[in-house]
Order: sequence, then C-alpha cells, then structure tokens
Amino acid sequence: MAYSGATFGSTQGHIQVSPEIQKWFATLDRDHSGRITATELKSALANGQGSTFSDTACKLMIGMFDKEKKGTIDIQEFQALFNYVNAWLGVFRGFDHDNSGSIQESELSAALTQMGYRFSPEFIKFLIQKSDFNQHQSISIDQFIVLCVQIQRFTEAFRQRDAQQSGTISIAFEDFLSVALNCSV
Amino acid sequence: MAYSGATFGSTQGHIQVSPEIQKWFATLDRDHSGRITATELKSALANGQGSTFSDTACKLMIGMFDKEKKGTIDIQEFQALFNYVNAWLGVFRGFDHDNSGSIQESELSAALTQMGYRFSPEFIKFLIQKSDFNQHQSISIDQFIVLCVQIQRFTEAFRQRDAQQSGTISIAFEDFLSVALNCSV
Repeated sequence: MAYSGATFGSTQGHIQVSPEIQKWFATLDRDHSGRITATELKSALANGQGSTFSDTACKLMIGMFDKEKKGTIDIQEFQALFNYVNAWLGVFRGFDHDNSGSIQESELSAALTQMGYRFSPEFIKFLIQKSDFNQHQSISIDQFIVLCVQIQRFTEAFRQRDAQQSGTISIAFEDFLSVALNCSV
Repeated sequence: MAYSGATFGSTQGHIQVSPEIQKWFATLDRDHSGRITATELKSALANGQGSTFSDTACKLMIGMFDKEKKGTIDIQEFQALFNYVNAWLGVFRGFDHDNSGSIQESELSAALTQMGYRFSPEFIKFLIQKSDFNQHQSISIDQFIVLCVQIQRFTEAFRQRDAQQSGTISIAFEDFLSVALNCSV
C-alpha cells in the first residue's frame, strides 16, 4: 500500500482545563459568551514566523473541536485544541532541525514518511508549493497542520471506499464532490 | 449526466490595460517591483460586507492569473483578474435579488442550476455551511467565487477521468490525493 498515515490527539472526552487556559480563554472571549470564534482564536496563535495562524488554519481547527457545529468553541474544546496544537508543535519541532520555525522539503519528506506515507520527491515539492503562500520554499507550523490534516482526511475518505485495500477506488460524481469539498479546508 | 458546469472568463491572451487599472496597480505595488502579491491584492478587493476578500480568495485568484507561478501578478494579469472578478460580480448580483451583498440558499441553488449543475437541497445546504465562515447562513462574493471555482475544478478533474461520461470514475490513491489537494484552495 502506498498510503498509511498516522493520526494523534483526540477531540473527544472530558478534558481538565488548566488555570493558564482559563485565563487565556477569558481574555479571548471578549463578549463573555463562553465561546470563542475562529477570529478570536486567530489572535491567540502565533506561528513562529512573526504572524498569527492563517484564517484557514483557525477555521480548520474550530471545525475539528466544535462539537455543536456552531463555528465556536467553549473552554473545554479550547483546551483540547490547545493540546492538539502542542502535539503538532512537537512533531514540527522534531523535524525543524535548524530551529528556523519553518520546515523545508527534506524535513517535510521525513515527517510524512514517519507518518507512514510514501510520496515521490515531486509530490513533496508540490505540497510545499501548494502550502507556501509567501514563496519561502518552506512551510510554517500552521501550514504544516493544515497540510497534514488535509492529507489525513483525504486518505481516510479514500480508505473508507477502498474496502479491498487495492489502492484504487470507484467513485460517483456527487460523492467525489462531497469528499473533495468536505475534506478540503 | 448530473454534472455540466459553465466556465467563463479567460486567463490567456493580451489584455488592454485601462488608465484606472494602471493607477490602481501603481498604488498597490508599493515596492515598484512591477508585480503584486496576494497580500497586496487583498487590500484592493472589498467584498461588499465591510471586509476585504479572504486570504483564500486572493490566493486562489493570484494562482489563476500568475502565469509564471511566482505567487505574484503583473499589471496585465491584474487587469485580467479585475475583469474576471467583475464577471463574477455580475453573476452574483444577478442572483442577489434583495441586493444584500450576500446570497442565501435559494439564490445559490438558482445560480448553480444556471451554471448547469443539478444538486440536491441537502447538498446546497452543505455548500453554504462549508463556505459561510461567519455563520450568517449566506455567502459573500469572495466566498461565492471560491466555491464556484472549486466546484468547477473538481468537475473538470472528474470529467477528464470519466471518458465514457458514465458519472463514475476509477481513481488510484496518489492521483486522488493530487486532484484533491490541487483543486482545493
């Protein structure tokens, strides 16, 4: 098989909220609604490149942790999201050998290989080009998260339709479009 | 067939640059490099909802008109992009019957039907939910462009693989992933 792909972190279950997170959440939740939006989240997440996380990354993550699908998260979900970002940060730092805050082609390749994917060098180049909005030939932590989550989602959708694990699926137009739009961020 | 889908506008050929565009481009091109980035483009495009076009929309459009794939566009490409946005704006306004600057479910459904698609009401709901970052149950012009371009791209990719026009394709994992990541924005 050419695909495998590891996932980690959980969006389920009860999570203990730390005092640090309580303080942080209160600062972000300006209208005291008990929930924060992607825009409020954005102001909380630095990408290590002198910028906040992208709109895309914030929207993606709110969507992952927002159980009620309202486009907002409560404090429990915020703690889960925080843990999730930290776990990704650990992976990212493990491959960012020069500690530059961004990872290059060879580092991305190593990261995806460790996750169980086998991609050609051309495909890795394509992934960088696709993610790298600022043309730096490298990707930041938020771009890395978006990319990995996208690959995981498409892999999962493919796998569900590949019962025989043959590496090829048969798919109808509406299903194709749903998967494509649903998994993309 | 369940899919058809119209496209319009051209990203090819020589385009006459108007004096208005020349002036506008000069304002945006702050470093006088003769090319503008997605970030510079963003400051030029209002979405009629008191906001600029999203990062996603700007990145998508730069990608469509940037012939050299440098992530920037020159003045000719800017004029082409401007014409393209205006054409979409014409479509959008045609369906925004209450002139609210955003279109709702029924209006989106009518727009996509006119483009040759036949989608179920559930699918239209899903499209709004997918695009509507601010939970207004409606989509703005930039979200509309992103959505239509995405649908068009996935439809085109599907069609290329559906030689018999049977409405079902057989697709391998790497090809699937390339299509999914390449067409998504």
